[in-house]
Amino acid sequence: MIKSISILGSTGSIGENTLKVVDHISSEFNVKYLTAGGNAEKLVDQALMYQPQSVAILDIEKYDEVSHHLRKSEIEVLKGREGILDIASRNDIDLMVNALVGSSGMEPTVLALSEGVNVALSNKESMVMAGGIISEIRQKTGAEIYPVDSEHSAIWQCLTGENNSEIKKIILTGSGGPFREKPLNEFAYITVEQALNHPNWKMGKKITIDSATMMNKGLEVIEAFWLFQVDINQIEIVVHPQSIIHSMVEFVDGSVKAQLGLPDMKVPIQYALTNPERKLADWESIDFTTTGKLTFEKPDLEKFPCIRIAFDALEKGGSAPAALNVTNDNTVKQFLDGNLTFSQIAEINEAAIYEHEWSENPDLDFLKNLEIWGENFVNETVKEGKLV
Amino acid sequence: MIKSISILGSTGSIGENTLKVVDHISSEFNVKYLTAGGNAEKLVDQALMYQPQSVAILDIEKYDEVSHHLRKSEIEVLKGREGILDIASRNDIDLMVNALVGSSGMEPTVLALSEGVNVALSNKESMVMAGGIISEIRQKTGAEIYPVDSEHSAIWQCLTGENNSEIKKIILTGSGGPFREKPLNEFAYITVEQALNHPNWKMGKKITIDSATMMNKGLEVIEAFWLFQVDINQIEIVVHPQSIIHSMVEFVDGSVKAQLGLPDMKVPIQYALTNPERKLADWESIDFTTTGKLTFEKPDLEKFPCIRIAFDALEKGGSAPAALNVTNDNTVKQFLDGNLTFSQIAEINEAAIYEHEWSENPDLDFLKNLEIWGENFVNETVKEGKLV
Repeated sequence: MIKSISILGSTGSIGENTLKVVDHISSEFNVKYLTAGGNAEKLVDQALMYQPQSVAILDIEKYDEVSHHLRKSEIEVLKGREGILDIASRNDIDLMVNALVGSSGMEPTVLALSEGVNVALSNKESMVMAGGIISEIRQKTGAEIYPVDSEHSAIWQCLTGENNSEIKKIILTGSGGPFREKPLNEFAYITVEQALNHPNWKMGKKITIDSATMMNKGLEVIEAFWLFQVDINQIEIVVHPQSIIHSMVEFVDGSVKAQLGLPDMKVPIQYALTNPERKLADWESIDFTTTGKLTFEKPDLEKFPCIRIAFDALEKGGSAPAALNVTNDNTVKQFLDGNLTFSQIAEINEAAIYEHEWSENPDLDFLKNLEIWGENFVNETVKEGKLV
Repeated sequence: MIKSISILGSTGSIGENTLKVVDHISSEFNVKYLTAGGNAEKLVDQALMYQPQSVAILDIEKYDEVSHHLRKSEIEVLKGREGILDIASRNDIDLMVNALVGSSGMEPTVLALSEGVNVALSNKESMVMAGGIISEIRQKTGAEIYPVDSEHSAIWQCLTGENNSEIKKIILTGSGGPFREKPLNEFAYITVEQALNHPNWKMGKKITIDSATMMNKGLEVIEAFWLFQVDINQIEIVVHPQSIIHSMVEFVDGSVKAQLGLPDMKVPIQYALTNPERKLADWESIDFTTTGKLTFEKPDLEKFPCIRIAFDALEKGGSAPAALNVTNDNTVKQFLDGNLTFSQIAEINEAAIYEHEWSENPDLDFLKNLEIWGENFVNETVKEGKLV
């Protein structure tokens, strides 16, 4: 049976890799919808190649460009946030791949799951923002989330055929990013260029900075909490610089299962698309006799306070993880724009947990307002120079 | 529901660990039968403690001692090979733990499976000798084999919830034994004492020597071939000196799953007893931040020809693996007795593949005769000094 899919964020790193996976097993997939942020040219190329039913471009100024180039096709062209949400609401597909970046990916996840559409989720912010809401929707509609993050895919694979109640501990591995070995006293001078230079994974800018601050690992803790329904103290982060073990699960009997491989996002993407089946890969597979040694260490919470902050937010619960997340979206942006230092990302992120108006059970409207609050909070902190 | 079990070889290393596991989850197990080789004292202790229905002692000279000490109990005492086989044929149990050592463990496995009794199999020689026969019996009676070997337990756990047809490769890890780093030209001078000193695992003598020659890894290849029904070229050996990763499975999509933990046989034993459930362990679990590095290398086939010999035997098929196995039982014995050098173990093992009267489909009688042939072949080779 051919699966119809939509890809939100098709011109980004995960989106492009998803299309490579689709090329590889194209007889099984029909790409029905594509959406992009501002890369009109790439969206047009993809549309002409995959002939989806509709595409959406977020940047309304690029709408005419996209429409013009697709004028001879039958492809519907939508625009703006409404266009993206429209496509996220379509239920004539089997799977939505959510490869959007940041908090704005949350609402599309909620919309798709509400329509009973399964979601291959790369946008971890969806779970960080709305883990509680999403859990309820899943229960109601029965729609599934297939994690695309390499760590959560690893955990999911380790849990195949196992009983979640027999989990002792989820061990999220992380490379430690480019600054693992940098002395703490040099952190104040970290440049954008340095932070964008990840040792193992080639990814988009936002997640690359999140890896450098290890906020990414913190967000993954929150994502794992909601995806696998374990207690906070059952989630542990272990730094594993080689990124070969993508994550592990320890069971109550002391047995540990790990999922491993070369750092290549096509593996978790394909598994999210084809599960419970696995399809023959045409990419390089790992040779353990040439991988060198695998090492493990504790994360350094002094260098990487964002990890502690994520646990704090999860402990505080309610809207705290969401406040952290919307703020981090903006501190990363301001860091990339040269308006914040590397260390200030964590400082402002932490303040947000306590500065926002906390809600125990934030609903979707609350969270959407929180997105605006986060942007304002960071902008004002930057503008007024009132750094914490 | 309480599971009734028998333990064949209860006074050995695996047998004792099995009883420790039973102690730990004793509310779930009833030890109904125990058998021992020659350790009358330990068998009596175990019998008094677990109050089985029957025990058997292989060494008929120890029968009186066992009977005498159990005279006030209602425990039936059996003796000799007949006694062991009698107990292996009892079908009023849920699981037989076969912790016998060497080729003589084969027939009990065949008997239990024929009676429809599931077998927790530590005796890998059963599969090496009679893999084909056992596969047929399993199909007929539906009885299951739960591997106890840490490697095969690891593979089994990695395959939970997976489809065996999606296996690309089974990666058997092995520590490489005590002589991994010894220069090849010193192999001629290896003593029994050195060979008995395994770096990671505390085990019985036979398997410790098999680890030193890496014949053990070769036998495991043959065992994996029959247990998981893959092709010969889908099985690979990787040396992993730390014995933390107990084995791995690579799937067709390039994803690899591994099972890890401290080297403690109680974990695979317990899983064999409790599967598909996992029970809370009271033993130490692994802390990755203190395990140090994990390394991998290719096995050195010049130092460890037994690996190549095992693959050759499997390739030749029919009775060749069985001939190798019965011969290895005896070369190890003669090495332990000081009658063979370390290197001669492999030389005689290899010769056996070509010297025995090969059969394409060896039946049980053939295999039992082969046991006798193996003993004679090695004895004569030693006696006549006609070393290959």
